[in-house]
Amino acid sequence: MSSSHQFSQPIAIIQGVGPGTGASVARKFAAKYPVVLLSRTEKSYKDIVDEINAAGGTAIGIPTDVADQESVQKTFEKINQLGEGGGKPKVATAVLNGLGTFVKKPFLDLTYDEFTTAYESPGRVSTSYIERGTFLFAHHVLPLLLAYKGTASGDSHPPTLIFTGATASIKGSAQFGSFAAGKWAARALSQSLAREFGPQGVHVAHSIIDGIIDIPRTKDWHVEHPDGKISPEAIADAYWHLHTQPRTSFTYEIDMRPYSERW
Amino acid sequence: MSSSHQFSQPIAIIQGVGPGTGASVARKFAAKYPVVLLSRTEKSYKDIVDEINAAGGTAIGIPTDVADQESVQKTFEKINQLGEGGGKPKVATAVLNGLGTFVKKPFLDLTYDEFTTAYESPGRVSTSYIERGTFLFAHHVLPLLLAYKGTASGDSHPPTLIFTGATASIKGSAQFGSFAAGKWAARALSQSLAREFGPQGVHVAHSIIDGIIDIPRTKDWHVEHPDGKISPEAIADAYWHLHTQPRTSFTYEIDMRPYSERW
Amino acid sequence: MSSSHQFSQPIAIIQGVGPGTGASVARKFAAKYPVVLLSRTEKSYKDIVDEINAAGGTAIGIPTDVADQESVQKTFEKINQLGEGGGKPKVATAVLNGLGTFVKKPFLDLTYDEFTTAYESPGRVSTSYIERGTFLFAHHVLPLLLAYKGTASGDSHPPTLIFTGATASIKGSAQFGSFAAGKWAARALSQSLAREFGPQGVHVAHSIIDGIIDIPRTKDWHVEHPDGKISPEAIADAYWHLHTQPRTSFTYEIDMRPYSERW
Amino acid sequence: MSSSHQFSQPIAIIQGVGPGTGASVARKFAAKYPVVLLSRTEKSYKDIVDEINAAGGTAIGIPTDVADQESVQKTFEKINQLGEGGGKPKVATAVLNGLGTFVKKPFLDLTYDEFTTAYESPGRVSTSYIERGTFLFAHHVLPLLLAYKGTASGDSHPPTLIFTGATASIKGSAQFGSFAAGKWAARALSQSLAREFGPQGVHVAHSIIDGIIDIPRTKDWHVEHPDGKISPEAIADAYWHLHTQPRTSFTYEIDMRPYSERW
Repeated sequence: MSSSHQFSQPIAIIQGVGPGTGASVARKFAAKYPVVLLSRTEKSYKDIVDEINAAGGTAIGIPTDVADQESVQKTFEKINQLGEGGGKPKVATAVLNGLGTFVKKPFLDLTYDEFTTAYESPGRVSTSYIERGTFLFAHHVLPLLLAYKGTASGDSHPPTLIFTGATASIKGSAQFGSFAAGKWAARALSQSLAREFGPQGVHVAHSIIDGIIDIPRTKDWHVEHPDGKISPEAIADAYWHLHTQPRTSFTYEIDMRPYSERW
Repeated sequence: MSSSHQFSQPIAIIQGVGPGTGASVARKFAAKYPVVLLSRTEKSYKDIVDEINAAGGTAIGIPTDVADQESVQKTFEKINQLGEGGGKPKVATAVLNGLGTFVKKPFLDLTYDEFTTAYESPGRVSTSYIERGTFLFAHHVLPLLLAYKGTASGDSHPPTLIFTGATASIKGSAQFGSFAAGKWAARALSQSLAREFGPQGVHVAHSIIDGIIDIPRTKDWHVEHPDGKISPEAIADAYWHLHTQPRTSFTYEIDMRPYSERW
Repeated sequence: MSSSHQFSQPIAIIQGVGPGTGASVARKFAAKYPVVLLSRTEKSYKDIVDEINAAGGTAIGIPTDVADQESVQKTFEKINQLGEGGGKPKVATAVLNGLGTFVKKPFLDLTYDEFTTAYESPGRVSTSYIERGTFLFAHHVLPLLLAYKGTASGDSHPPTLIFTGATASIKGSAQFGSFAAGKWAARALSQSLAREFGPQGVHVAHSIIDGIIDIPRTKDWHVEHPDGKISPEAIADAYWHLHTQPRTSFTYEIDMRPYSERW
Repeated sequence: MSSSHQFSQPIAIIQGVGPGTGASVARKFAAKYPVVLLSRTEKSYKDIVDEINAAGGTAIGIPTDVADQESVQKTFEKINQLGEGGGKPKVATAVLNGLGTFVKKPFLDLTYDEFTTAYESPGRVSTSYIERGTFLFAHHVLPLLLAYKGTASGDSHPPTLIFTGATASIKGSAQFGSFAAGKWAARALSQSLAREFGPQGVHVAHSIIDGIIDIPRTKDWHVEHPDGKISPEAIADAYWHLHTQPRTSFTYEIDMRPYSERW
C-alpha cells in the first residue's frame, strides 16, 4: 500500500482475501466503500485489488497474518493512518472470513502442536490459530467500528462486524475435534460480542456456511449436483444485506447451504 | 377480488396482512410481483391493497381464516384460477406471517379449549390454531411453488416459502407453554419442509423475530429505547433478500432483534 | 382396578405402559412406590400389573386414552380417590412415555386429518394427538405433584414429572414433519413447565431417546450391531436417577443413544 | 504418591480435585475404584486423599498442571505404571472437572495474554488454558479407556470419560467471551470425541452445570434461596449414574441447575 491513502469517507476492512469468498465480499463492498484487504501474502489479494481499482473502485492490500499479534498490530498501525489527515479512518464494515479449512484426523493421531499452533501450510490451521485470529481482528477493529457510529450520518448503515463460520461451528463431528473446537470458540466469541456491542450500536453477525463454497480451490471437489456448491457472490450479497439492516433489526445469525445439501 | 384477474407473470401470496409486518412485506414484494393478500377480514388488507394499486402495483385480497380447512380450500380454489387462461398461477413467493401473539398464563389456568381451539378474538390463538394454519397454508401453496420452479426462466429467483417465527419458536418460557408449543411445532414443520423441498428447488426459510415489532398495535408498548422495536420494513427487506438467494445458497434461518434487546 | 385401593404412601403414575419402556419404568418405580399404570387398553398393562403384584409390589391399571379429554378426566377422578381415606393420593412421580411412533410420509401425501386427529391404529399418531396427550396428562397430574411437595418428608425425593421425547423432538427431518411438530411442541411445553414449576419445587424433565428401543415391537428391526438398541431398563434407571436428584440439582434434559448410533 | 502402588482392579482418574466438586466425585467413585486425583498442588487433594484412605478406600494424588504438556506427560508416565506388574492400569472412568471459573470483563479491556495464556492465580483461566487442558487430559486418558474396554468383564461398566461444563458452554454472554470461547471449544471437542470413541465402546459425556456449586469457595456468594446452589454430591451421583449406563444407552449430555435458577 502507498502511505498516501487518506479516506474521508467510511471504508470496509476484509480479512482473508484470496480468489474465493473474500474476493467476492471485497468486490461487493467496493461498490460503496474503499476496501482494505488483508491476507497473509500479497499474492492472495493482488488480483482483486487490481480488478477493483481498474473498475473505478478503491482497494488496497496489507499483508497480515491475522493470528500473529505483531503482524496484526503493524497492520492496524497502518490502517489507523488511513483516515482524513492521516488519522483513524471511519470503518463501516469489517469482515473476518473463514479461518482454517477442515482437517479430518483421528484424535489420537492429532498432535498437541497441531491443536495449539498456527501452521503455515494452507488448510492446516489449529484451534488456537482460529481463536487468536478471531480475537486479534475483533480487538483491533471494534474501537474503529465504535467510533464510526458516532460520525455516521443518518442515512448510512450501522457499523458491522461479520464472522464467517462453517458447519463445524455448530457440530463437533468425529475426527473434526480440532477444527470444531476453534470454530465453536469463534462463534462463542462472536455471540458474546453481539451482546456486548449491539447495545452500543455495532452490528455483530455470524454466518454458518454449511457446504462447499464454489471457489478455485474446490473446483475439482465432487458434489452430486452441478450447482451443489455455495456461490461466493451469494455470500457477499448476504453480508451486504446484513450490513444494510437498521439497528432496530439486527440479524445475529444466518446459515447458508446448497439446496441439495443434506443436513 | 374480481374474478377477472389473470396473471401470466409470477405472483406472491402473503398470508396475515394487517397494518403491520404483512403490509410491509406486501409492499416490498409488490414492487416486482402482483400480490395476493390473505387475512381473516377484508378490513385488515383493504388499505394496503388500495395503496399498492394506487401506486401502480397490483394487489388483491381474499378473506381467509388460515386455520380453517374449508376457508383455505375456498381461497385456493380462487387462487388456482388466477393464472393465464384461468389456470393455476405461477407462485414465486409465499409468506406465512406470524400466527398468534403471545398469551402469558399460568399453566393450570389454561383450559383445554384454549390450548386446542382457534379463538376469534385477536391475540387469543391456540397451539393447535398455529399448527393448523401452518399446515394448511403450506399444504396448499407448495404444489404451486413446485410447479413454478418448472416454468421459471433463468434470471428469476427460486420459489420461496417463508415462515415468520418468534422468540417463542426457540424458547419455552414459563407461562408461555401454549404459544411456544405452537411456534416450536411450526418451526419443526418448516425445518422438515426445508429438508424435503429444498432438494426439489423450493427455498423454505424460517425467521425468528425476537422482539416487539413496531406496528400500530404495539405503538403504546413501552421499550427502553426509542428505536427499540423491530422495523417491519427491515423484516420485509430480509424476506426479499431471502427470496433473491440462488439455490446454490439457501438460508434456512435468520433471527432479527433490536440492537438493544437482551437475549 | 378395585375401588378399594387407598395409599397413604406416595405413588407413581406411569402413562403409556405396554411391554416396552413403560413396563421397565413401572417395574423400576414399583420397587419404591405403588404404581398406577395407564394405557389405552387393559391388555397393554395387564402383564406388568400382574408381574409387579406377584413380586410383592403394588400395581393397578386404569384404561385411559391420554389424548381424550373425557377419558383422562375419568381416570383422574379415580386417581383422586386413591389417597388415604379416599382422598387425593400423594404423587411422587409421573412419567409420560413417548406418545406416537414416527410416521414417515411425503408432506403432500399427508392429509389434514392425519395431521390433526388421533388415530386408533398403533403408530399412526398425529401431531395434535401428541400435544393433547401431553397437555391433558400434565394438567391433571401437576396439581397432585404440587401438593405432594407439601407433604414430602425430608428424606424423600422431590416430585418429578418426566416426558419421554425422541430424535424428532430436536430435529425436523424430511417427511417427518407431523411427528416432529408434535414432539417439538411437547418439548416446548415441558421446557415451559420446568421453568414454571421448578421454582415451586416440582422437577420437570425431558429425555431425548435417540435410537430404537429394544422392545418386543422392534424385535425384528435391523440394526447394524447386536447391541445397537436402547435398553428400556437403562431408560428406567435414568428416570429413577432423575427422580432422586435433590432440588438443588435438577436435570432438565438428558439424551440417550446406543454407542453405535450415528448422530 | 508412593511408587509402590499397583492396581490389578480398574481405577478412576479425577482431574481437578479441590474441596468442591472434585472431592465429591472422588468420594463417590472411591466406593468402587481406587482413585487417582490430579490437581495443580498437593494441598488441593491432600484432605480428600486422606479422607478416602482413612475410610478404607484407596486414593493417591499426583500434582499436575493439566494445561501444561510436560506436566501432564510426567503424570501419565506415573499413571502408566500403576497397573499390575508396573504396567498400564485399567482405567474405568476419567473425569475432567470444570477448568476455569468465569471472568467477566469488557472485551476491549481483555488482553491478548489473558485470552491466550494460562494464569497462575485461581479464577483467571484463559480460553487457551481450558482447551489445552481438555486436549491433554483426553489425549492421555483415551488410550487407557480404550484398552480397558478390552479387559472389562461382563458385569462391569463401560469405560467413561466425563467433561464438566458450565452455562458458558452453551451461551456467549456479554463480557464472558474468553470463558465462553474456552468452554464452547471444550464442548465441541467432547462432542467430537463422543462420536469418534462411542462406536469404539468408550462412553464420552458432557455435563452443563448451570448455576453456582455449593462449595467452600462460593460459601459467601449470595443466592436468593438458601438451597439455591448446586450440590456437589448430586453432581457426583449424576456422574456415577452416567458411568453405570450400558453401551446400548449412553447419555452424551445432561444439564443440572437449582430449582430456583432462571434460565
